[in-house]
Amino acid sequence: MIKVGIIGGTGYTGVELLRILSHHPQVSLQAITSRSEAGKNVSTLFPSLRGITDLQYSDPDQSNLSHCDVVFFATPNGIAMTHAPALLDAGVKIIDLGADFRIKNAELWEQWYGMQHACPDLLSKTVYGLPELYRSDIKNAHLVANPGCYPTAIILAALPLLESGLLVSEHIIADAKSGVSGAGRGAKVANLFGEVADNFRAYGVTGHRHDPEITQVFQHVSAKPVDLTFVPHLVPMIRGIHATVYFQAQAEQADLTQLFHERYKDESFVDILDSGNFPETRSVKGSNQCHISVNALGNNKIVVLSVIDNLVKGAAGQAVQNMNIMFGLEETSGLTNLALTP
Amino acid sequence: MIKVGIIGGTGYTGVELLRILSHHPQVSLQAITSRSEAGKNVSTLFPSLRGITDLQYSDPDQSNLSHCDVVFFATPNGIAMTHAPALLDAGVKIIDLGADFRIKNAELWEQWYGMQHACPDLLSKTVYGLPELYRSDIKNAHLVANPGCYPTAIILAALPLLESGLLVSEHIIADAKSGVSGAGRGAKVANLFGEVADNFRAYGVTGHRHDPEITQVFQHVSAKPVDLTFVPHLVPMIRGIHATVYFQAQAEQADLTQLFHERYKDESFVDILDSGNFPETRSVKGSNQCHISVNALGNNKIVVLSVIDNLVKGAAGQAVQNMNIMFGLEETSGLTNLALTP
Amino acid sequence: MIKVGIIGGTGYTGVELLRILSHHPQVSLQAITSRSEAGKNVSTLFPSLRGITDLQYSDPDQSNLSHCDVVFFATPNGIAMTHAPALLDAGVKIIDLGADFRIKNAELWEQWYGMQHACPDLLSKTVYGLPELYRSDIKNAHLVANPGCYPTAIILAALPLLESGLLVSEHIIADAKSGVSGAGRGAKVANLFGEVADNFRAYGVTGHRHDPEITQVFQHVSAKPVDLTFVPHLVPMIRGIHATVYFQAQAEQADLTQLFHERYKDESFVDILDSGNFPETRSVKGSNQCHISVNALGNNKIVVLSVIDNLVKGAAGQAVQNMNIMFGLEETSGLTNLALTP
Amino acid sequence: MIKVGIIGGTGYTGVELLRILSHHPQVSLQAITSRSEAGKNVSTLFPSLRGITDLQYSDPDQSNLSHCDVVFFATPNGIAMTHAPALLDAGVKIIDLGADFRIKNAELWEQWYGMQHACPDLLSKTVYGLPELYRSDIKNAHLVANPGCYPTAIILAALPLLESGLLVSEHIIADAKSGVSGAGRGAKVANLFGEVADNFRAYGVTGHRHDPEITQVFQHVSAKPVDLTFVPHLVPMIRGIHATVYFQAQAEQADLTQLFHERYKDESFVDILDSGNFPETRSVKGSNQCHISVNALGNNKIVVLSVIDNLVKGAAGQAVQNMNIMFGLEETSGLTNLALTP
Repeated sequence: MIKVGIIGGTGYTGVELLRILSHHPQVSLQAITSRSEAGKNVSTLFPSLRGITDLQYSDPDQSNLSHCDVVFFATPNGIAMTHAPALLDAGVKIIDLGADFRIKNAELWEQWYGMQHACPDLLSKTVYGLPELYRSDIKNAHLVANPGCYPTAIILAALPLLESGLLVSEHIIADAKSGVSGAGRGAKVANLFGEVADNFRAYGVTGHRHDPEITQVFQHVSAKPVDLTFVPHLVPMIRGIHATVYFQAQAEQADLTQLFHERYKDESFVDILDSGNFPETRSVKGSNQCHISVNALGNNKIVVLSVIDNLVKGAAGQAVQNMNIMFGLEETSGLTNLALTP
Repeated sequence: MIKVGIIGGTGYTGVELLRILSHHPQVSLQAITSRSEAGKNVSTLFPSLRGITDLQYSDPDQSNLSHCDVVFFATPNGIAMTHAPALLDAGVKIIDLGADFRIKNAELWEQWYGMQHACPDLLSKTVYGLPELYRSDIKNAHLVANPGCYPTAIILAALPLLESGLLVSEHIIADAKSGVSGAGRGAKVANLFGEVADNFRAYGVTGHRHDPEITQVFQHVSAKPVDLTFVPHLVPMIRGIHATVYFQAQAEQADLTQLFHERYKDESFVDILDSGNFPETRSVKGSNQCHISVNALGNNKIVVLSVIDNLVKGAAGQAVQNMNIMFGLEETSGLTNLALTP
Repeated sequence: MIKVGIIGGTGYTGVELLRILSHHPQVSLQAITSRSEAGKNVSTLFPSLRGITDLQYSDPDQSNLSHCDVVFFATPNGIAMTHAPALLDAGVKIIDLGADFRIKNAELWEQWYGMQHACPDLLSKTVYGLPELYRSDIKNAHLVANPGCYPTAIILAALPLLESGLLVSEHIIADAKSGVSGAGRGAKVANLFGEVADNFRAYGVTGHRHDPEITQVFQHVSAKPVDLTFVPHLVPMIRGIHATVYFQAQAEQADLTQLFHERYKDESFVDILDSGNFPETRSVKGSNQCHISVNALGNNKIVVLSVIDNLVKGAAGQAVQNMNIMFGLEETSGLTNLALTP
Repeated sequence: MIKVGIIGGTGYTGVELLRILSHHPQVSLQAITSRSEAGKNVSTLFPSLRGITDLQYSDPDQSNLSHCDVVFFATPNGIAMTHAPALLDAGVKIIDLGADFRIKNAELWEQWYGMQHACPDLLSKTVYGLPELYRSDIKNAHLVANPGCYPTAIILAALPLLESGLLVSEHIIADAKSGVSGAGRGAKVANLFGEVADNFRAYGVTGHRHDPEITQVFQHVSAKPVDLTFVPHLVPMIRGIHATVYFQAQAEQADLTQLFHERYKDESFVDILDSGNFPETRSVKGSNQCHISVNALGNNKIVVLSVIDNLVKGAAGQAVQNMNIMFGLEETSGLTNLALTP
């Protein structure tokens, strides 16, 4: 059994990790920390976990996680980087669900996240945890930066096209829509039911932190310079991301759906819909799947639609997928739950 | 024109007062205070008010409201009672949308609200602002305690039965359901979209502050002792209260709907549905109406259903109705907006 | 492996059966019928099932289900009773998720359901599939009537009190609230998003089909005549039932929570919350659990709160629980999924 | 008083017309037709209208509307064109909220709408009812084609840029999101609460009927050929459209917000937000306003965000605005309601 610790277990990604890991056949949950809830049963905070676990939150300052095989960080940005070096030294593998290690360039990171990076030297040793692109690196990684939710949906929608060289230019427009759980469980007026329900709006139009993260991968994959326009929107739903990504191809493409099928044919969690079918976020609600639809429009334009559950394939599920790869387990272990529809 | 001030204008009842008063033909809005937003245009916080008003929030400490004819308090409990005496001395009438003056018994109030009352002597001079019951007192009142949202819906559902003496006992069960805006605009985890949406729960089962408020009125109206069981629930919707109130009658009743029609025949804002029709909260969304359905079941049981918009008839609308009465205006002035359906 | 057939697989209970059974370790899905969708893959209709099953809908007239060990009916009322005799004769066990066999008295059934019963002789041989009450009968049953969603939530809330003899009278008020999926997947204006969202209403106030079903069980369990008042309401959420049930006890009760703990101590799917905790529907969303909170109020009144997922413990999950019992499997087999929160 | 008739009054645009017109100071509602609901009070179907009108639905075959000054068609596509010639001959003005007269080219219309046009000769005499573009024509029009909801939001977002000649190419991407009421009140599985809630999806990706409607106007306004990519999405909310429109400019633009301010400075219903503010659909819920935000991004890209209430500025409100213009009334008459927020 793999000994697992979770740092920061009171947010939505934390409870989602608990939901997935508590049924994972090769995992033994050792500890879950929370400064504010130390001493409480996790099932007191999240009654959905009743009967599954009698784990209690422990104080992060008094929790020794160095005996764990792997530690997940489900913390606000800036926390993981202060704990990572010591844990790595103790031989513990790390999967950070936050953003501390996602950007290779420390200056760029500091500019977007407004703080100094605590261990820029680790950035080059970090693997970006998108299995569909970096699986072989993840296998040997000690520190994995789990991708953001928007980047996961958008990169999976773009990869086959970027890799194919079919695009006339790398001017890409990603119009993305997210459920509210993506904003976390912090007490903010903007995320109140009374503010979000029966409402729709864009945000971060002139710059969002996931922008440099996506661009970094696009640039790595593409031969040409990439010019990304990324506009996120808030949808009055709990879970789900829908990315609508617009591309310009060099010429009319014969069978783009086939191109995507080919690219992802060995992937357990990327599923290409038949032509004419468009994905719905509810079809992946609670599951680690990404559903993609590829559409060729007139004038060599291509529209790719991609949906994930932001808390699963966009966070906790992908983190467990990474853990499975890092420890040589079946990649789908613990991740076979079906989506909850309706 | 009546000169109106609003103290505490950043919450949901505050913006609802603005929505209603900015179109009121006999009102001139003088000031709206907010400590945190002082200096900002109200339409910056609430773009729904753009083009209607260029009013700015003013600092409550620097705002002299003593030239107003009437001041509305849309503040957290405990604020109005600290300002009321001075304003009353200056000849300003007060309508408090909070709970400071709703309970006649200061000790009882202090027990439920957990603080000392600042001016218990004013309690006996306060009129409880339910026009359908206390209209003549409101006419001459200087200080009106605007009823709570649950009490409004439940009392209107019970009045004709309590007054009729038809009930075998005053054991009444009020199972009430409220939209989330009733919990205010404060930043609380419990009211986040991710916590409330696609979810339903009871709260305050063993005691809610509206309990003594309802009982006080029931006791005042009824000859017999009243035994109220009140259980509130949270509905994943923004606005609306639905009260399902259960009574036991002494004998089978011929025509209860007629009894209610008779009781409310001169009321502009209480509307009795024909037998067999059940009210929906959306039919009163944004309007000052209360829709009521009376149902006689077997064994002399009676079920009354009552719906209001918690922010209108349950707060800001009823407050304006009270103002209209206090100043001798048409009672419906500024309150003729139709519900927004769907 | 148990060979399973499903008749009527395009509604919400049908797809929920598929979700649960496709991961059940001892089940082999043989056939799922649908007149309207015959020939289509189930995953075309419900993309949430992609990758799990390549089952196709088959025409009910051309489907021979007599080789199945058990057949689930997820059909509109009136269908199961026309097919049941032949299947039973062929040695196939039946679990009907509809209402055809729930009422023992054929006349009463016909009165509430407005049609003639096709096989009233089978009613006495049918077992009402509430495991917490009739487990030993279910073990040997060939025909199980799966309880309605409201009855499941309400009966589980009342059982310990009815059995204890503590109640002063069997006058019980069940104020129940359901998500919209309980109304099925039929195309009705009343269930459109535009009609249901941001809205709350009661329905069936003067009589609902689940009324006689609940009363039948209450009467069976209780020594005294039962007088049930049952008012259902529609909540703008997809899944979940919340029952608020009001009782009158003979005297103040020492420890009701303990009474419930004792009654359900061997039950895997009934979970009694500690005093002061109130259940939320989301804590059981997608799971087969029932969460119950027992509250003693003044004047010997008792309020019990009970939540289930109407599609799981209120339909498909309980049906699978019954199947597990009928075939001597572990009762929790295939039913260990955690709720999806948030 | 202007005598008004409504044909087809049971859908969402019909009831919205009633809501607006019943408070319009210069309108006398003469008749509202509905084949299925003839003889019923409109307030039976829509209790939100109780107390305002005792109008009954009349049978369209027996309703003589030729004495009306103006008739609104709130009917499915294909109805208005069969009645228009006779009414026009009788001197009645027509405002069609459907699509029958929106496309100037009859062949193109027939191709998208799948039926033969009943009076193609009227198309050239029809005025497209977008006041911000065609006000002077509307003044003298006898037949006005009220714009679709998506076209209204998208065209208003694009007009100043198309007219300015600043764009490098007329390749425009309009990623649009709509509330569910835009799909009408018909009984369709796809629009059930259980299908739409907590879900997000695109539709009509490879072609939507509003595509040729938008392109027709763009082409009329622009000197260059226009290449529009239009992808609509369904948002789990009742009302509201949010259009996110992407443009490519020739060079960096100094002050685009100023350009928009200038273009719309005399418009009562188009409101340009200050730079850095993004519109929300709820800020215009129930009002006839359109809120627009203009954003210049890097590489000369421009993103314009535009929100309307699809039932008001996107349908009934704009129809009344057109009526006001056609009859020389104040353009804002009956349209001054504030948005309902929250």
